[in-house]
Amino acid sequence: MPSGPTLAAIREAHARIAPHIHRTPVFRSASLDRLAGAELFFKCENLQRTGSFKMRGATNVIFSLSEPVAGRGVVTHSSGNHGAAVAYAARRRGIPAWVVVPRGAPEVKQRAIADFGGEVITCEPNLAAREAAAREIMERTGATLVHPYDDDRIIAAQGTAALELLEDAGSLDLVLAPVSGGGLLSGTAIAAQSLQPGIRVVGCEPAGADDAWRSLHSGQLQKSEKPETIADGLRASLSERTFAILRERVEDVVLIGEREILDAMRLIWERMKLVIEPSSAVTAAAVLLGKIDVSGKRVGILLSGGNVDLGPFFHSA
Amino acid sequence: MPSGPTLAAIREAHARIAPHIHRTPVFRSASLDRLAGAELFFKCENLQRTGSFKMRGATNVIFSLSEPVAGRGVVTHSSGNHGAAVAYAARRRGIPAWVVVPRGAPEVKQRAIADFGGEVITCEPNLAAREAAAREIMERTGATLVHPYDDDRIIAAQGTAALELLEDAGSLDLVLAPVSGGGLLSGTAIAAQSLQPGIRVVGCEPAGADDAWRSLHSGQLQKSEKPETIADGLRASLSERTFAILRERVEDVVLIGEREILDAMRLIWERMKLVIEPSSAVTAAAVLLGKIDVSGKRVGILLSGGNVDLGPFFHSA
Repeated sequence: MPSGPTLAAIREAHARIAPHIHRTPVFRSASLDRLAGAELFFKCENLQRTGSFKMRGATNVIFSLSEPVAGRGVVTHSSGNHGAAVAYAARRRGIPAWVVVPRGAPEVKQRAIADFGGEVITCEPNLAAREAAAREIMERTGATLVHPYDDDRIIAAQGTAALELLEDAGSLDLVLAPVSGGGLLSGTAIAAQSLQPGIRVVGCEPAGADDAWRSLHSGQLQKSEKPETIADGLRASLSERTFAILRERVEDVVLIGEREILDAMRLIWERMKLVIEPSSAVTAAAVLLGKIDVSGKRVGILLSGGNVDLGPFFHSA
Repeated sequence: MPSGPTLAAIREAHARIAPHIHRTPVFRSASLDRLAGAELFFKCENLQRTGSFKMRGATNVIFSLSEPVAGRGVVTHSSGNHGAAVAYAARRRGIPAWVVVPRGAPEVKQRAIADFGGEVITCEPNLAAREAAAREIMERTGATLVHPYDDDRIIAAQGTAALELLEDAGSLDLVLAPVSGGGLLSGTAIAAQSLQPGIRVVGCEPAGADDAWRSLHSGQLQKSEKPETIADGLRASLSERTFAILRERVEDVVLIGEREILDAMRLIWERMKLVIEPSSAVTAAAVLLGKIDVSGKRVGILLSGGNVDLGPFFHSA
């Protein structure tokens, strides 16, 4: 039996989260089609509530909890898009959310979490301190941990973006998603291959955080020890759970350099008039900068989020 | 009888251009609604083909020409969005387009015109030289001039954006459009007030190019002698034709400062994940920065285009 959640679980997640999320549009671009020599279908999760696909997973877990469990609140230790999504989904359910954030995390992200009603807890900037802070909150309050990817309910819900993409785009040859902890890519692969057996699924990863590439090529789960990339949403490493799914389903992982991330991000901003964050640009880079041969193919591309600190862009413009 | 084209002419233009343009989406934003204390409906012409609403007017004129007239081609002297739209619409009709561009115009805009198949003709950077160059081409080739706004066919077609907006958003209290030569604002006012009598129509204009404000407040057509604004699409002045329409229909013109244009542009990029150009930000600024009281109202906002040179933004980020 294949690893991970089933298509049925993805459909169930979709029904649960549908009232709380946007059904994001699938955009085309004639000029980018020409550039790639392919038919590109961009699933715009940068237009999702809270600005990323993380809203899907967080909402599914939070709305899966029983009344008494939910009432004690939720906790997570992600300063990025997942933290904002947990805060937002918790507010929709009317329960408290604690988000553990490492000292020094961007002001703008902390403010987003607080704006969505989450309580920001700062800690030392290392994994042990973050986990300890989350554990302390769980013990004190009885709150439930919402993990960013190592959870079948999260994986199933992240797969709902591909579900919608295939419904809207029709038959595709290939679908690309970024890979960090592997939740989105796992859910995408399960949804796509369950709906269209034979569809090729490719992950895209920064060369500076290449644990998924190394894991799949070595056959052993590897960690990114010191990830260095502008793609701040792609610095996590696979778990045993997501590694098992990706080994079974993913054709390959394509590595993208830092310059390529910025070039692809600019192309999407310029041609599609869509603000995407660096973590979203890895899929666009793979297709638009010739990192993978897609000529003549129908290609689905997950644009995962649009939360980028515009300060540096506007400061000197 | 009111000045300018009728609703029937707008509907006719819409039928003519529909096969060639995108029906752009109307986007909402919960966070911007909260900021404005109103219900905002953003008509996203930044997602229009060629990146601006200018595609509507240019397409209408070019597809209105008889076979023999069209065959001799079209000419315009706008280096900006109108020039790109004329080039693109001409290619769709399969006819030549000459676009007169002042020496020193941004490389990126000249390239866009050439990419769309237009022939770029450079001239000295003043109005007399541009008009002379266009006249020379017309005399030599028999090409037809496509004026950016002083033409009822252009005004009718620019009104089709408001037509779609009202169809999608339903009843509105107020609609805002930027004003430069007045084509978009005139068409918007005619469409909106014909469909929803009593709807308020407000123009938004950079304080550094305030000819429409001065014209409406003095009752005399005024020109912007030396417009100074980052909103490069809003430096033209009203014509007698557009002034007559605006006098009859527009409640007021709101002036927007340069800092406000950048602040509103950033808000739209950040919250809506949409790249809009400075000329589009004047409407957003009016509503989001408290330049006009919209509390509790349903407000339609024309986001007119998304063609901004991203070089300076990416250079130092």
